[in-house]
Amino acid sequence: MSSTPDAPGPRAASPGPSTRVPLLDVPGVAAWLRRDGVETVLARLVTALEEDWSRWDRVEKSPRIASHTAIGVIELMPVSDGEHFAFKYVNGHPGNPARGLQTVTAFGAYADVATGYPLLLAEMTLLTALRTAAMSALAAREMARPCARVHAMIGAGSQAAFQALALRAVLGLDQVRAFDLDPAAVEALRGHLAPRGLSVHAAGSVEEALEDADVVTTCTAAKARQAVLRPEHLRPGLHLNAIGGDCPGKTELDPGVLTAVDRIVVEYAPQTRIEGEIQQLPAEHPVTELAEVLEGRATGRGGPEEVTLFDSVGFALADFSVLRLAHAATAGTDLVTPVQLVADPPDPRDLFALLQGP
Amino acid sequence: MSSTPDAPGPRAASPGPSTRVPLLDVPGVAAWLRRDGVETVLARLVTALEEDWSRWDRVEKSPRIASHTAIGVIELMPVSDGEHFAFKYVNGHPGNPARGLQTVTAFGAYADVATGYPLLLAEMTLLTALRTAAMSALAAREMARPCARVHAMIGAGSQAAFQALALRAVLGLDQVRAFDLDPAAVEALRGHLAPRGLSVHAAGSVEEALEDADVVTTCTAAKARQAVLRPEHLRPGLHLNAIGGDCPGKTELDPGVLTAVDRIVVEYAPQTRIEGEIQQLPAEHPVTELAEVLEGRATGRGGPEEVTLFDSVGFALADFSVLRLAHAATAGTDLVTPVQLVADPPDPRDLFALLQGP
Repeated sequence: MSSTPDAPGPRAASPGPSTRVPLLDVPGVAAWLRRDGVETVLARLVTALEEDWSRWDRVEKSPRIASHTAIGVIELMPVSDGEHFAFKYVNGHPGNPARGLQTVTAFGAYADVATGYPLLLAEMTLLTALRTAAMSALAAREMARPCARVHAMIGAGSQAAFQALALRAVLGLDQVRAFDLDPAAVEALRGHLAPRGLSVHAAGSVEEALEDADVVTTCTAAKARQAVLRPEHLRPGLHLNAIGGDCPGKTELDPGVLTAVDRIVVEYAPQTRIEGEIQQLPAEHPVTELAEVLEGRATGRGGPEEVTLFDSVGFALADFSVLRLAHAATAGTDLVTPVQLVADPPDPRDLFALLQGP
Repeated sequence: MSSTPDAPGPRAASPGPSTRVPLLDVPGVAAWLRRDGVETVLARLVTALEEDWSRWDRVEKSPRIASHTAIGVIELMPVSDGEHFAFKYVNGHPGNPARGLQTVTAFGAYADVATGYPLLLAEMTLLTALRTAAMSALAAREMARPCARVHAMIGAGSQAAFQALALRAVLGLDQVRAFDLDPAAVEALRGHLAPRGLSVHAAGSVEEALEDADVVTTCTAAKARQAVLRPEHLRPGLHLNAIGGDCPGKTELDPGVLTAVDRIVVEYAPQTRIEGEIQQLPAEHPVTELAEVLEGRATGRGGPEEVTLFDSVGFALADFSVLRLAHAATAGTDLVTPVQLVADPPDPRDLFALLQGP
């Protein structure tokens, strides 16, 4: 679109109110989490997710745009509810850690549909970790047994502490048993959770981690078809929270697990069938969308003996929810820094006037 | 995509180099234009456009994603050349000026495909004005008569000064004749151009503006089918540069003009047939893409008597070019402000560590 607002129109006397867009950077998100408490933010985020998921049918679910190369992917994920528009820029580069870089980084914006003006520009690496954990907690609330206490974590990397805190905040899972191929990762997890009163048992194997577990979270990162959990690992009443399998060719669960569980819940079936654990299943295999469970049209758990699975891949609406919450929680505070991202000359028809300088 | 880089991997000793992303804000772009001179930047941008257009066949031309409502549109425009990725967020809200807001605002980012890390975050309202003007100059260089001197402008809004300076910098058009329904807009244009040695004749009508014109730029903003130029306005040798018709239902030229001209050049035919002046023509009407002209596979002007038309709608590759130039021109200078947009903890597998605070 060319930038040519050249028809006669009212000439405004002063710049619009949104010339400066609040920027919520990485230290800003960290300060927000310290100010309100990580678990409080996660609990509020579960509420925000539930609110947005209740409008599921009215949400504009655009396909993500992905630019693939041999070594990674860059994606734009847009979503709108008709009042606000959000997008996330996110990359995935498995070779990055070897260079001291993050596999995944993300940033995004939250905008006003009525004016098209951005309301918040935000880092989204931390925000994505938060929304991923809150989605797990929301699904587990509907799917795990009410008496659940023990949380087994297979993979103790960047997502683990967020998952553990979200599942404690929302479900009261106050015992963590963690296994990782790298024992240092479990120690780092323990270092984060112990000061928050959450004890971590360092397990020497997947099997040891699973002892007495009520909820099992798998969040491993290898970009391959793995079998972190196999059918013999399943016990009646278990809820599985599978996070790591999230793109074609990247799965964590043995296909036998998928056919053995009683119930599979997903965020958005057309996307999960391509990206989730269920990419290993025939396209007609029955799955339930989380919105159906939240709306009472389906159940998350049919009885105490069922084995349930939330196959999470990450959906743009959750990014929308976390941006909406972050905007509400930080607007007008010193957690955000105003940046002059929008050109808003005193006369909207005279952009060139901005060149005059201060 | 979930954020779960949980496979064992090397643990980096220090954050990556790109934790802080340079932000080029509105004052930063204005300061860049003052530092190097608007016309110098425009001339360099024409070179950058020509370089990127010469790689036309290798560029990943993704469709834009548009989120439409009754009162406006928000779009994401991505493009990649395999080494860098760029996207622009742009809105179009015709009702905004009545609220003292810009019809169009834009911002975007330029990223490294090898790592997925953003290299530059930039305002793009001014950058879009620059690239739109530079595209006009590049096309006019191939299409206008070499002896051209007089530039008629129909519509003297935000784009006008940039167009006038680009066509002087590249083609030497040193006489401007401008008409706008709002005489104040022509006065503002004269105020910008006179100090730069470019005289502006304020015309009382379209016909008066066209006297002696070699190149005619139409850049009006009304979102309607207009007939700013009609067939009787055409004279042998004229080059038309039509900027304002850039979306379905928004055109500036009478259909008779389109069938009367000898040659129509466009950026990218599939897009222009939907958004440009040629949306008024049958889909089989012959047009030439600018890349064909630049590569010598087609000619922009068949002889001194031809009437030629560049039907410009704005293409994502031009946004890529202006971001590439802006990045090269401002990296490492105080024109940019580093912002902590990318979470890059010392240990890439331990994102939670960022919550500890400074």
